[in-house]
Amino acid sequence: MSESMQGLKRSHYCGELTAVDNGRVVTLMGWVNTRRDHGGLIFVDLRDRTGLIQVVFSPEINSASFTKAGGVRSEYVLAVTGRVSIRPEGTDNPNLATGEIEVLVDELRVLSQAKTPPFYIEDGVEVDENLRLRYRYLDLRRPEMQHALHLRHRAAKAVRDFLDEHGFWEIDTPMLTRSTPEGARDFLVPSRLNAGRFYALPQSPQLFKQLLMVSGVDRYFQIVRCFRDEDLRADRQPEFTQIDMELSFVDVEDVLELMEKMVSRLCREMVGLEVETPLPRFTYQEAMDRFGSDKPDTRFGMELVDITDIARGCGFKVFTSAAEEGGQVRGINAAGCGGYSRKDIDDLTKFAAIYRARGLAYFIVTAEGAKSPITKFFNDQEIAAILERFNAREGDLLLFVADQPDVVAASLGALRVHLAEQLDIIPRDKFNFLWVTDFPLLEYDEEEKRWVAMHHPFTSPLEEDLPLLQTDPGKVRARAYDIVLNGIEIGGGSIRIHRRDVQELMFNAIGLTKEEAHEKFFYMLEAFEYGTPPHGGIAFGFDRLIMLLAGKKTIRDVIPFPKTQSATDLMTMAPGNVDERQLRELHIKSTLKKLPDQNNNKNK
Amino acid sequence: MSESMQGLKRSHYCGELTAVDNGRVVTLMGWVNTRRDHGGLIFVDLRDRTGLIQVVFSPEINSASFTKAGGVRSEYVLAVTGRVSIRPEGTDNPNLATGEIEVLVDELRVLSQAKTPPFYIEDGVEVDENLRLRYRYLDLRRPEMQHALHLRHRAAKAVRDFLDEHGFWEIDTPMLTRSTPEGARDFLVPSRLNAGRFYALPQSPQLFKQLLMVSGVDRYFQIVRCFRDEDLRADRQPEFTQIDMELSFVDVEDVLELMEKMVSRLCREMVGLEVETPLPRFTYQEAMDRFGSDKPDTRFGMELVDITDIARGCGFKVFTSAAEEGGQVRGINAAGCGGYSRKDIDDLTKFAAIYRARGLAYFIVTAEGAKSPITKFFNDQEIAAILERFNAREGDLLLFVADQPDVVAASLGALRVHLAEQLDIIPRDKFNFLWVTDFPLLEYDEEEKRWVAMHHPFTSPLEEDLPLLQTDPGKVRARAYDIVLNGIEIGGGSIRIHRRDVQELMFNAIGLTKEEAHEKFFYMLEAFEYGTPPHGGIAFGFDRLIMLLAGKKTIRDVIPFPKTQSATDLMTMAPGNVDERQLRELHIKSTLKKLPDQNNNKNK
Repeated sequence: MSESMQGLKRSHYCGELTAVDNGRVVTLMGWVNTRRDHGGLIFVDLRDRTGLIQVVFSPEINSASFTKAGGVRSEYVLAVTGRVSIRPEGTDNPNLATGEIEVLVDELRVLSQAKTPPFYIEDGVEVDENLRLRYRYLDLRRPEMQHALHLRHRAAKAVRDFLDEHGFWEIDTPMLTRSTPEGARDFLVPSRLNAGRFYALPQSPQLFKQLLMVSGVDRYFQIVRCFRDEDLRADRQPEFTQIDMELSFVDVEDVLELMEKMVSRLCREMVGLEVETPLPRFTYQEAMDRFGSDKPDTRFGMELVDITDIARGCGFKVFTSAAEEGGQVRGINAAGCGGYSRKDIDDLTKFAAIYRARGLAYFIVTAEGAKSPITKFFNDQEIAAILERFNAREGDLLLFVADQPDVVAASLGALRVHLAEQLDIIPRDKFNFLWVTDFPLLEYDEEEKRWVAMHHPFTSPLEEDLPLLQTDPGKVRARAYDIVLNGIEIGGGSIRIHRRDVQELMFNAIGLTKEEAHEKFFYMLEAFEYGTPPHGGIAFGFDRLIMLLAGKKTIRDVIPFPKTQSATDLMTMAPGNVDERQLRELHIKSTLKKLPDQNNNKNK
Repeated sequence: MSESMQGLKRSHYCGELTAVDNGRVVTLMGWVNTRRDHGGLIFVDLRDRTGLIQVVFSPEINSASFTKAGGVRSEYVLAVTGRVSIRPEGTDNPNLATGEIEVLVDELRVLSQAKTPPFYIEDGVEVDENLRLRYRYLDLRRPEMQHALHLRHRAAKAVRDFLDEHGFWEIDTPMLTRSTPEGARDFLVPSRLNAGRFYALPQSPQLFKQLLMVSGVDRYFQIVRCFRDEDLRADRQPEFTQIDMELSFVDVEDVLELMEKMVSRLCREMVGLEVETPLPRFTYQEAMDRFGSDKPDTRFGMELVDITDIARGCGFKVFTSAAEEGGQVRGINAAGCGGYSRKDIDDLTKFAAIYRARGLAYFIVTAEGAKSPITKFFNDQEIAAILERFNAREGDLLLFVADQPDVVAASLGALRVHLAEQLDIIPRDKFNFLWVTDFPLLEYDEEEKRWVAMHHPFTSPLEEDLPLLQTDPGKVRARAYDIVLNGIEIGGGSIRIHRRDVQELMFNAIGLTKEEAHEKFFYMLEAFEYGTPPHGGIAFGFDRLIMLLAGKKTIRDVIPFPKTQSATDLMTMAPGNVDERQLRELHIKSTLKKLPDQNNNKNK
């Protein structure tokens, strides 16, 4: 049976005792990590969130406690009182922070017993993730998970300290908001008091933070939960956390400078990393041209090389027609891959095809020059020029795509990263931050047959591009910026439109009628008429940032209680069934013929 | 038209300039608070969140700017560049922090024009609250609202700093959780990916924070949004914010001590108030006996006085029968109210009746002794004893209720506060914090004909009362505590049950079968089997705390974007209508014959 802790008070955490405490009487409380019986004594490694310490039970110190200790098992919760003692010579454990000492236990209380856990409470366990999520409260006991929770706490604290020092006020915006179907799918919340109407959980506080600028708040931030009811491909969660901020009377440069300071400080304080600032900046065009990506990973080279000019005159139809039809011919140098087999190259071709590349031409660079089925279409000068442009050496493999610019960029950009991973040439210890700026304001949506906002419809165009908004929308550049770390977008933002007339032009450009725009955003358009400061902001994906700082591969490892790809919480089995009465009160009913099986509603 | 701020950079905030800056060239940006034309000059009070500064336009400094300034109106957004100058003698404004100086403007840019706002942007305006909420972005421009937002930010920061220093980790728990219908009504969120099932928005992170203790997190906190779909009587909001925390290996005393430190620091840092600790502590029983309330306001006296023993032997049937039937006779001394008319006393009787008191007996204390229709039922000694017990003086009014203890407490407790407000004897500058402890664990629900948890079913009974749980549940005291400020409960918590067997006893006591308990709380009961530390916690109503610190009368004045009593946001008109398609995807439909009028969906 469990004993009470009444009358006891913990004096120290397990991990904070050292040899300096030798002789001190301490009371510790924690979990049994391991128990060993040896030489007539019982040794327990007691664990709390600070670490482990060895506590020793001896029949000579307290025989009742010794007897009781004989019954303890892994994960029992104990309170022990005893004297800190330097370990006998030769028995210290250099792998343990407290390895020089042990606690000779007088009083023992068993505060809670424990069944055998379904997996070992230790780092690096190979356990099915669903089992870990089902018993998340045990999974979180593992030191690496505790470390991730602590890092998450410290990072949030550091961000708050930084922003507070820089004049930002944290202001909480509503979770029960209005659905504005533009962008991802909303989670809806039926209203009981307003029959037939629904709240939406926010995809971001975008409109509220802009309204706070209209309010004169000047500098706002929030570490805030956001929601998207999207299919959870890749590493997405239905609820996720953003560091969200907005500033008045600023231009792009002000935001970038300040964020560089914040990121540097975060890296220094969290992982002891010095980030060199200013961060490299690439325009969208440059990033696409050089890396085939708007989130380039610059930890390795293998940049895209343009040979459209050379290809234009060659005899290879695929190249020439691409060049003639407004397309490009570009390639990358897979250095050292000259030995790739026909099958290897076929695999790369298939990979590039995912990104709509219709083919992948190649040169194998040998001592005798380029070998390839297509060399016959080039004269010697052309081949020499190509090899030179790629800085090609014997043993290299050049890979080419000829197509429209978007296909060339997407396929070569992906191929570049794919090859780098395959070749294992990405240095793991680099943290390459960079900015991408001057994104296109709009992109054409082939399905919807209209222009859509590349970021969101509140993004300001560059002032000099404003006249193009009505004449050549695809050419308009945005005052938008993304921050990228090691090829992953960790944040993005823009200077916003702050004039009603420009905002209306923008809505018009994305095909909203005046009425539709007003129906959706009336409060925004109205607010802009009462004196609106120029403003801009940015939002960071907090989960992703923590994932990268913690060196984890999925955001599920840094979110305390994440959901699965089917948006369920395996521990509580949310979402669950609800009573008919609850739905009746909300003026809704299920359209399903048969409600889900109640038995699926709980774990067994 | 609006001008661009390109090439300009704000150098200072308006409110931070002083006479020391005389001669400095500055660039300020803000809103036109007022404009006055006087003596061939134009004076504008420019406002940002730091305050006001007078900027002056003169045709002699820059005639183009002067001309442009002739067109500016209230709430226009300006950027001005000019030189700080000491105001001419006799023209300084001692009511303004920047009143010694002004800025002689060279360059002016009008960054944004403004329509005339629907109400004045100034403190203490008498404006219909609905209009303020409709134009919340303008309401928040008012200095007192900016102050409230800033206080809210600073208080959250101070709480986080304090808890971080004391070893707490802020850990975010899910918003999309499982409905556990015990307590208030949940907001539900239909799941698209799990047809027929629903998430619930959390009423509090109670279960998650307890599971974090099972995880060994040791000290958790979170400033967190919570949701209750209740009818919004009084000053409630459908979404509200809590400072939520939980600690392992602690007893009541540890929690109380730590929270007193936190509250003291908050009061000192936010409003410069020194709170004396330890705070006064009352058991629930004492609070009810002395103040007729479990959240006593101790800023004034007028305590309840028990005269059951004296009343027992008197000839007044109402008193004697109450005393004989396990009831009480108690009263309060409305000092100085001896002059109250029959009508005044009738009004008090009606007031007491709201709290189910069937009558209100009274003594008017005169120079000749007690006057009352009931004095005839008492002998002189009894009357003297009563007057003495109330410390009654000439001109006082004694008011008595004879009934069951709960009715006596409720009616006299309410009457006490009512009278104190009527008499205006409550000192406005006092901040009386106190603890109420040892609450009953259970209370009997007459409607449901069962015992229900007074706080929640995870509250631990006092160890010595544990045996009563099965024999006399009403007698069991809880290890629960509330913190009260000036008669308002601002927080509450308890040491929790951490043993599965006790938790099952508790569920049994509130009438849940083993199956029902498992169906609702299986993950909690299971978790308790894997080694659970003793733990406890507390949650503060953050909105209410800020309201009290800011000296406001409603939490709507300290919540950035609050909702009305009908749970609508008048600015965005949430909740709103949604497309049929959206509902179809969620596998639900409205049970209304006719959907709400689309025209109600937006402001006109």
